[in-house]
Amino acid sequence: MPVQPDAPITITAYDWVPPQARGFVKDLRVRWALEEIGLPYAERLFSGAGGEKTADHLAVQPFGQVPTYHEGELILFESGAILLHLGAKDDRLLPRQPAARARAIGWMFAALNSVEPFTAGLFLAGWVSQGQEWHVPVKAGFRPLVEQRLAGLARKLGDREWLEGPFTLGDLLMVDVLRAVTEPALIAAHPILTAYLERGTSRPAFQAAMAAQLAVFDRFEADQGEGL
Amino acid sequence: MPVQPDAPITITAYDWVPPQARGFVKDLRVRWALEEIGLPYAERLFSGAGGEKTADHLAVQPFGQVPTYHEGELILFESGAILLHLGAKDDRLLPRQPAARARAIGWMFAALNSVEPFTAGLFLAGWVSQGQEWHVPVKAGFRPLVEQRLAGLARKLGDREWLEGPFTLGDLLMVDVLRAVTEPALIAAHPILTAYLERGTSRPAFQAAMAAQLAVFDRFEADQGEGL
Repeated sequence: MPVQPDAPITITAYDWVPPQARGFVKDLRVRWALEEIGLPYAERLFSGAGGEKTADHLAVQPFGQVPTYHEGELILFESGAILLHLGAKDDRLLPRQPAARARAIGWMFAALNSVEPFTAGLFLAGWVSQGQEWHVPVKAGFRPLVEQRLAGLARKLGDREWLEGPFTLGDLLMVDVLRAVTEPALIAAHPILTAYLERGTSRPAFQAAMAAQLAVFDRFEADQGEGL
Repeated sequence: MPVQPDAPITITAYDWVPPQARGFVKDLRVRWALEEIGLPYAERLFSGAGGEKTADHLAVQPFGQVPTYHEGELILFESGAILLHLGAKDDRLLPRQPAARARAIGWMFAALNSVEPFTAGLFLAGWVSQGQEWHVPVKAGFRPLVEQRLAGLARKLGDREWLEGPFTLGDLLMVDVLRAVTEPALIAAHPILTAYLERGTSRPAFQAAMAAQLAVFDRFEADQGEGL
């Protein structure tokens, strides 16, 4: 288990988030990559209860989010940038050969900038319209944008196991983006994507990362319970 | 002028786009970076008229978008990945020192994954709701998400000229993302961002990239005119 309080790498995460966000906070992406290469890390927790972000938090993450990554003097934010930094350490995350590496990095950006903005857009459209008369039509407006991206992805993936040869950080991010699609039917429309998602989330490193994120919330609630 | 038909680098772009999209197609980001380092490139044009994408186009870009980048055997898609590849060629795009480079790359991801999904979300919310009764409320729902990110960015930028020391690809992407914000008042609320945007778009390389993108559309329309 890579969570180890005296590890030279520290990542930040939330101490608590609402139930529907559990398993979906973005430190999972970094935990997953660290688990893939067996690199131990310590956790530093910020309050996830909402409200004003602390000055401590904003000093390391300008938008008051998690994760951040701390390794000696280096402080990084943005899960994509943290993963890229980890990818340079180990070819189980990014291939060494320059063209293969550049292609894998292309898929990292595709997940974060060509797919996630639309899947997140559909989620946000549903969220900002809760209880409104236009809840259904606004989601209907955003949905085709997601469908178009998922169709392109399924066509490209075809009968490949992963997007470009071996598993890379491009797959890690793409699987994590697909996992958060709020309407299961959008994925189910593409058996290729269902199977890809299943392959990704079956990886022991994913499972360990998920358990580590959830353990923090369980611990927090147990501590709160003791305090009552 | 880096556009040069026999250059070893080729980028793809559209031959034509509707007037409101001109100057905002994402090959601009790649043209801008190439102009910053004076690297010549050839153009290959895909139809921007809408409708089904050609097999040729989908073979190099799974979502049927532009730009793609061709250099010898290497074919890349995703403007962020293309920029990262160019950044490795020249320290005027990304600093050499590893921590400074990692921080600059962090800002590239911040532009593409922490700011653009929300600015694009607001744009899409307006677009999918055109002519609908819920046009105003859906935009009001998305707007605070943009405001929150812009406030974080302005606070971080403060009186700095660029986000991390010298101009980097992090600034190039952030300026290009801010430039596309559809409601000028959102930027104008932060004089720090107005000035940053002005500094970015005043760079001769930005101006040259913009002229090169627009020249393609002008040429296409002139050719069509001749064909009448």
